[in-house]
Amino acid sequence: MNKAHYSGKEIANGTVTSPKGFIASGVHTGVKEDNQLDLAILFSKTEAIAAGVFTQNQAMAAPVIISKDVIKNHRLRGVVINSGNANACTGSRGMEDAKAIQAKAAELLNISPDELALASTGVIGLPLPLDNILSGIPEAVSKLSENGGKDAAKGIMTTDTINKEIAVEVEIDNKIVTVAGMAKGSGMIHPNMATMLGFITTDAAVKPEYLQNALQEVTDSTFNMITVDGDTSTNDTVIVLANGKAENHRIDKDHPERDKFFEALQQVSEYLAKSIVRDGEGASKFIEAEARGFKTLSDARKAARTVLSSNLVKTAIFGGDGNWGRMICSLGYSGAPFNMETVELTLGNGQGEMMKVLENGLPLDYDESFVEKILEDNHISIIIEANVGAVSAKGWGCDLTYEYVKINGSYRS
Amino acid sequence: MNKAHYSGKEIANGTVTSPKGFIASGVHTGVKEDNQLDLAILFSKTEAIAAGVFTQNQAMAAPVIISKDVIKNHRLRGVVINSGNANACTGSRGMEDAKAIQAKAAELLNISPDELALASTGVIGLPLPLDNILSGIPEAVSKLSENGGKDAAKGIMTTDTINKEIAVEVEIDNKIVTVAGMAKGSGMIHPNMATMLGFITTDAAVKPEYLQNALQEVTDSTFNMITVDGDTSTNDTVIVLANGKAENHRIDKDHPERDKFFEALQQVSEYLAKSIVRDGEGASKFIEAEARGFKTLSDARKAARTVLSSNLVKTAIFGGDGNWGRMICSLGYSGAPFNMETVELTLGNGQGEMMKVLENGLPLDYDESFVEKILEDNHISIIIEANVGAVSAKGWGCDLTYEYVKINGSYRS
Repeated sequence: MNKAHYSGKEIANGTVTSPKGFIASGVHTGVKEDNQLDLAILFSKTEAIAAGVFTQNQAMAAPVIISKDVIKNHRLRGVVINSGNANACTGSRGMEDAKAIQAKAAELLNISPDELALASTGVIGLPLPLDNILSGIPEAVSKLSENGGKDAAKGIMTTDTINKEIAVEVEIDNKIVTVAGMAKGSGMIHPNMATMLGFITTDAAVKPEYLQNALQEVTDSTFNMITVDGDTSTNDTVIVLANGKAENHRIDKDHPERDKFFEALQQVSEYLAKSIVRDGEGASKFIEAEARGFKTLSDARKAARTVLSSNLVKTAIFGGDGNWGRMICSLGYSGAPFNMETVELTLGNGQGEMMKVLENGLPLDYDESFVEKILEDNHISIIIEANVGAVSAKGWGCDLTYEYVKINGSYRS
Repeated sequence: MNKAHYSGKEIANGTVTSPKGFIASGVHTGVKEDNQLDLAILFSKTEAIAAGVFTQNQAMAAPVIISKDVIKNHRLRGVVINSGNANACTGSRGMEDAKAIQAKAAELLNISPDELALASTGVIGLPLPLDNILSGIPEAVSKLSENGGKDAAKGIMTTDTINKEIAVEVEIDNKIVTVAGMAKGSGMIHPNMATMLGFITTDAAVKPEYLQNALQEVTDSTFNMITVDGDTSTNDTVIVLANGKAENHRIDKDHPERDKFFEALQQVSEYLAKSIVRDGEGASKFIEAEARGFKTLSDARKAARTVLSSNLVKTAIFGGDGNWGRMICSLGYSGAPFNMETVELTLGNGQGEMMKVLENGLPLDYDESFVEKILEDNHISIIIEANVGAVSAKGWGCDLTYEYVKINGSYRS
């Protein structure tokens, strides 16, 4: 993953507990089979400023409703996350179950329930196996430690094949500030929607408003720019906790080094977002789409996202087919204005090999065998130059494979 | 296909030449391999009133640009359609090629070029093999006949596995009025977008304005309510020709029997639209989604279309999985307002077997094995009752299968 343009120093084996003052755990409660970890707690030893962004789906899961509510005052101590069951479309029982988990964990953590956010991922429409989860909470609380980050990252996985975590350091006010995160996405034990969860920790001191705005802005250019199958889940959640242990001056929009923090947040979020699509259900190739030269950011983002979401583009990439007509076609229905007579298209790969295939809206006389070679790589770049403005955006996705159909077509039980 | 609610009498082996005064042909020119028909002409012996609806894709193919232009005066004699190459993303050369085809055919038909619409389907981004097509036009013109409807329907196919045509009769002003149509969709010889073409003929006498409005309205509830892969093509076109040979009084909004004509147009369009998704690329199951009880028609249509477009719903149906959570999830991001506490969901099949799985937003205690049995059928119904209004809409789609990935992932050459 190319992160050369970020200044944050990546911490080897960093986890959500790399920032000072955070502890975490992951345990098995029996929601998932075998001995897989299925319950994670992330906890700040001291009060943290919190910000969150949540799914826009009208069919919002119970834990999302609760987390949106408790995060309103921008103060949180931690998050309890279960995997294996999304507690979505479960009506009033789902709300009661979620509140029971929140209450039990808060009691054992000796905090108020409204200092705890919740998140769930997994099968939807089935009630939570509440007893399993409740009986696992004491163990999860007792195991909370500065070394628990990796278990927590495992505890939030469903059919993810790798755990997704990162920590980076930047210097602000001559203090080392650490920003870290973990995420899950693109899979589940019982095939269901690709629930996206992200949890970011930092020991930076940050003002709540700045944190919320920064998270929203960063999410729009990272988590909101990835797509696996175009389905927006009922449970999508990204929460950031900032506990101030780094002892920098509180960051707000007037802080002279605010950009360093913002960039570290961006770095962590982009890494996690890319990890999610890289591990997309059945994915064999990672696709980066860059939409350049549009009039507005909204247009550029629409263009990149629509091209990445097209089943026909995704299957072409899977097949190693430089079928760029499908890319222009999807651009054509993206809603982003462009001009067929000025559009350019370049295909590239992770080895830096590139070939422009379209210029001024016309196919160039390119070497198709070289394009085939480019597309053999498992990292594909699609660069669209609209030439109608000066704004660019990047997005990330994956191909659509037999394995995707298999994972999602096989019966839940 | 259930057409019991339509009053039009279906003509056995009906084609686009079933209405009086229409002739057609289909020939092989060498754009497609072997001896497959790849050029079709549809012609009215006398001037016809014409109406058309076209793709909203900004990357519009040359024949679409030309057809939109010539149809402005609502007078046409015919349409020339080639398959195997979409003449899209081909810039100024594509426009020149299309005009050359139009001019050559018009000359041989002894009409003005602006009396001929054009349509193309197939691979995009490659120049037309113009010589092949031009040299095939004389044969196509010479073969025009009242028995040529079936060849024309074959000539517009790409990877369609069956030709799609229908003709129905209704009585208007004590005259027999015939409405017929042919369509292609959901496939191509070189994998490409699912180009949708539809051509409707009728010997009804109709006023141009009424015909255009009726076509738009009918298209919105038929062709625009189908989805195979969510990709809107560069070439989508539906054209209707009405030559008045039935000698009824000209139909307009004040004609007392206008509804009979409208319904026949609807019947033909719905049959063709359903045929397209039934023959969708790699499809193993036909899916009908009915969205009931919404506040507006736009909401109901959005709801039905979004559920049908979800890859997760499509793969679940493929796998025979009554994973209704995915349906509610897609409803949740459709943009159609509903209330999780009043929504109902029923799954059914083509045998009339049905099971309500969700009521008041809560899963019912249904027999999952019966739902599995329902989903074994190759005709699946998804009925959403929002209970927030009185408006309903239906849409049609197909499942997402290994075969879809295979068809679209295999290299073009």
